[in-house]
Amino acid sequence: MPQSNSANSVGVITPQIAQFDEPLTLVSGKTLASYELIYESYGELNADKSNAVLICHALSGHHHAAGFHEGDKRPGWWDACIGPGKVIDTNKFFVLSVNNLGGCHGSTGPTTTNPETGQPYGSDFPMVRVRDWVESQARLADRLGIEKFAAVIGGSLGGMQALRWSIQYPERLHYSVVIASAPKLSAQNIAFNEVARNAIMKDPEFHDGHYMVKNAIPKTGLMTARMLAHLTYLSDDAMGEKFGRDMKGDEVGYNYKPEFQVESYLHYQGEKFSTTFDANTYLLMTKALDYFDPAQYYQHDLAKCLDEATCKFLVVSFTTDWRFSPERSEEIVDALIEADKDVTYARIESEKGHDAFLIPIPRYINVFGAYMNRVVKDLKL
Amino acid sequence: MPQSNSANSVGVITPQIAQFDEPLTLVSGKTLASYELIYESYGELNADKSNAVLICHALSGHHHAAGFHEGDKRPGWWDACIGPGKVIDTNKFFVLSVNNLGGCHGSTGPTTTNPETGQPYGSDFPMVRVRDWVESQARLADRLGIEKFAAVIGGSLGGMQALRWSIQYPERLHYSVVIASAPKLSAQNIAFNEVARNAIMKDPEFHDGHYMVKNAIPKTGLMTARMLAHLTYLSDDAMGEKFGRDMKGDEVGYNYKPEFQVESYLHYQGEKFSTTFDANTYLLMTKALDYFDPAQYYQHDLAKCLDEATCKFLVVSFTTDWRFSPERSEEIVDALIEADKDVTYARIESEKGHDAFLIPIPRYINVFGAYMNRVVKDLKL
Repeated sequence: MPQSNSANSVGVITPQIAQFDEPLTLVSGKTLASYELIYESYGELNADKSNAVLICHALSGHHHAAGFHEGDKRPGWWDACIGPGKVIDTNKFFVLSVNNLGGCHGSTGPTTTNPETGQPYGSDFPMVRVRDWVESQARLADRLGIEKFAAVIGGSLGGMQALRWSIQYPERLHYSVVIASAPKLSAQNIAFNEVARNAIMKDPEFHDGHYMVKNAIPKTGLMTARMLAHLTYLSDDAMGEKFGRDMKGDEVGYNYKPEFQVESYLHYQGEKFSTTFDANTYLLMTKALDYFDPAQYYQHDLAKCLDEATCKFLVVSFTTDWRFSPERSEEIVDALIEADKDVTYARIESEKGHDAFLIPIPRYINVFGAYMNRVVKDLKL
Repeated sequence: MPQSNSANSVGVITPQIAQFDEPLTLVSGKTLASYELIYESYGELNADKSNAVLICHALSGHHHAAGFHEGDKRPGWWDACIGPGKVIDTNKFFVLSVNNLGGCHGSTGPTTTNPETGQPYGSDFPMVRVRDWVESQARLADRLGIEKFAAVIGGSLGGMQALRWSIQYPERLHYSVVIASAPKLSAQNIAFNEVARNAIMKDPEFHDGHYMVKNAIPKTGLMTARMLAHLTYLSDDAMGEKFGRDMKGDEVGYNYKPEFQVESYLHYQGEKFSTTFDANTYLLMTKALDYFDPAQYYQHDLAKCLDEATCKFLVVSFTTDWRFSPERSEEIVDALIEADKDVTYARIESEKGHDAFLIPIPRYINVFGAYMNRVVKDLKL
């Protein structure tokens, strides 16, 4: 992360926890009697609380988007874009980044103790939908006295939250930034999710989702899920460029140990993920993705759905993203135009696939940065 | 299969077995002291044995390409293309279709009894490469007195065999037909294979590949492998058209049972495959795919590699095939042109993805059929 020298880093960050005791009834009909949200903030909230920006994370993301946790060598996942003088400029904005409900990084989720049983929720944790996340984020904003966000911003599943915000609380955001996202999953997207879920749930160490009380982890299933997900995040070109057919040794091994570099890479990623991410959270997040389809309540007319929105939009896509291709972003753009909304669209040339949204690609940074400057000027921040 | 009425079907077919007692030394250096190949044939071998066509099968294929096994309702996997009056016209050609060595449909493979132990080979069955298949197919041709094939034909991994034939035994084929194939796997292709292999090998029921003696099957791993493979055989468009976001019921279930139609379809395919296909064979076949790269022995110059060939070529690709995209076929075509070979190329418009090669798409059938007529005329069959 070249931009993470001390001059433009938000520095050492300590997450905070907000406890909510007002029950939250979820879209599924289930109720959480109480819950916690873990979050980080970067920059200062101004006097009239008009400079807040909400960052929404993706499937395997979390609240730690920028800066460093004490002792860490690697910064948060979007440090390339958040910091003093960066695209999301912490000299101008108060940036709020929350771990989603159902997550496994500190917000209440499957690994949390269920007050009713004294055991971890595990698979008893209720399913959450994108609407539930928006609702819980809105309550956190209430808590912090933020009536209206300058912008709600997210990539991938985070972009779906930014889109959902625009119709769920239209009066509570000025700008929505939807990056590398889609208005709903395709059959292929759902299929990839289901292969991963099936691998997790059929892992004998899954124990119907109550693996924690058995001191077990469905490691094989999680590893399959992560290896597969990685495949969908990278383009064929990017993998070709990074690994090609390079082998670890000079000779073909005639055995089943990883021998192509790309195999070792996937194993490393899978191993790491399977020991740090919670399987039930993975299941929950993928179901939230599958279910997301705001237009379904408007006769499948996305323009009619987005007619609710009053904010302005920036939509960004990347040419080799085959998880959520540019065409998926353009469905959103077309619907926004049809609904007579203010929308700016950038289709960024990149060979990096879906992961491009995390990478400081020059044109992406320039367009995104210019748009955020427009937000600053428009709102006189 | 609309073309499978009795008038243009090869009818009821009984497979045959050829036993080989001359040892076969594989590329890996290992030797099979003896082995069997199961095969089928359709049509009559003419007096001078000049009308033989070899069909090479793909990853999960087998020798049963056309007609019906006694009592079966479904015909062989390429019945759309093989039969009297069809593209590969059994009134003209003697069509030979062999189960590859290492397979699980009757040729010697991991499920066969290892004469040294009296137990199934399991994971002790040696790895085979595309070259080994060509060698074993050539020995079968010897046995049948076929000195030179009119054509060697295959799709996907079968296309790699057809390509390999052209340089390994250039004097033994007049035509090579390479459909929906590639000159080597990309990093992404290898990665998909490795996700599948890892899922199989980490399945606790795999028992280091000796599951048969434990009366076990690595069902979960095989199911993951098949679900994933299916995903790569179908295009995003084809899945969208076939399933979209259709659900089995009217209401969202908020549970992890398959509820989108595409999930049920994948489960069905995965379940079926996991009880009928051998896991070790799956591993072997994917490694043969990964290793295939004939140009590596010619300074990675495919044109130089194909300079060995003396046959004529038909290369076919399908527009939405993202497993082996048209660009991969065009690498072969470009190399053949550079090597001054006779090559005909058709890029067929289809929304069916990789699976298109199995489907009687009109332009595909027309081009392929016209080319096979050319073979008939050229060889005066």
